[in-house]
Amino acid sequence: MKLLKEKIESEGIVLSENVLKVDSFINHQMDPVLMKEIGLEFAERFKDEAITKILTIESSGIAPAIMTGLALNVPVIFARKRKSLTLTTDLYTATVYSFTKQESNEITVSNKYITKGDNVLIIDDFLANGQAALGLASLVEQASAKVSGIGILIEKSFQPGADDLIAKGYRLESLARIEALKEGKVQFAKDRQLEKAFAGGI
Amino acid sequence: MKLLKEKIESEGIVLSENVLKVDSFINHQMDPVLMKEIGLEFAERFKDEAITKILTIESSGIAPAIMTGLALNVPVIFARKRKSLTLTTDLYTATVYSFTKQESNEITVSNKYITKGDNVLIIDDFLANGQAALGLASLVEQASAKVSGIGILIEKSFQPGADDLIAKGYRLESLARIEALKEGKVQFAKDRQLEKAFAGGI
Repeated sequence: MKLLKEKIESEGIVLSENVLKVDSFINHQMDPVLMKEIGLEFAERFKDEAITKILTIESSGIAPAIMTGLALNVPVIFARKRKSLTLTTDLYTATVYSFTKQESNEITVSNKYITKGDNVLIIDDFLANGQAALGLASLVEQASAKVSGIGILIEKSFQPGADDLIAKGYRLESLARIEALKEGKVQFAKDRQLEKAFAGGI
Repeated sequence: MKLLKEKIESEGIVLSENVLKVDSFINHQMDPVLMKEIGLEFAERFKDEAITKILTIESSGIAPAIMTGLALNVPVIFARKRKSLTLTTDLYTATVYSFTKQESNEITVSNKYITKGDNVLIIDDFLANGQAALGLASLVEQASAKVSGIGILIEKSFQPGADDLIAKGYRLESLARIEALKEGKVQFAKDRQLEKAFAGGI
């Protein structure tokens, strides 16, 4: 997605070969127009999947997810990272390990909001090792619902999450794929469809 | 705001005289159309305040804040409830005590995103004791910026937060004001303007 890649190039800060900081438009300050365009883009990509619910995880997934929900006209649920006092029973739970923060979180979703027959689109800001996406997929599958797609803003293609999700059979759409973070610069990978089309040479 | 009050009446669950659960459309599952209408309503109410930034707090404030940001065409910042690994310096911080959770959180915002000259609109889902709103206002004032307004989805008018914010001189706009939670029912208060107009009798 052109607009997102341009934002990453102009405002993203490469902190190391693994860490891209996008605090000025996604993770702390958010650009509402970019979020709206992201919502429209995901809605377009997943329009044939008969999506009934969107599932994301607090906090940075919420803005793109609510815009996608508005575009697809379906409810949006955010999984919580720890149990809240008013949500103590009837939860699906999964454990998610964060390599960045080096800690495990329990993520939870109420069994009232994802149920059998739902076609769920999972939305998240980053995909690196895939732990959050797999945890969210587990919540959906515990509900006997279907993971109809996974929409990611920024995929770090040099980490194993994307390949892992595809190997497990999930449909993955990443709006910006990063091949490498080198010498302070972001190198983008081609869109996955283009890569596939030319696999094995022309 | 009619649509929000109707949602509260049809889907809100009164758990006690202090606790209203709105997990089906605000706090866990979110209704994107409602969030869009809330954004438009706040934009209308604060349109003459020359708002330059919106500040909210993770997680339930993000959806209404991003919609308000889209309507007013300004960036949205969400304060974090604990320090993140990639945001360790140059922070404004405030301590917020949650009566519901009976714990204190440090909330933080980067000094890059709120600066002198900003007219900041604070958005949050609930107003009860006013701790979160006061903490957010403190972050804005630490930046020598102006709190141009506070927009709340659900004000529990029987708790001291609203009066406290008004006494401190903040402009408060609450979309639904709750007078009491009694016998499992929500009793709404009148809009503040109406209350004022008839104060002292006709």
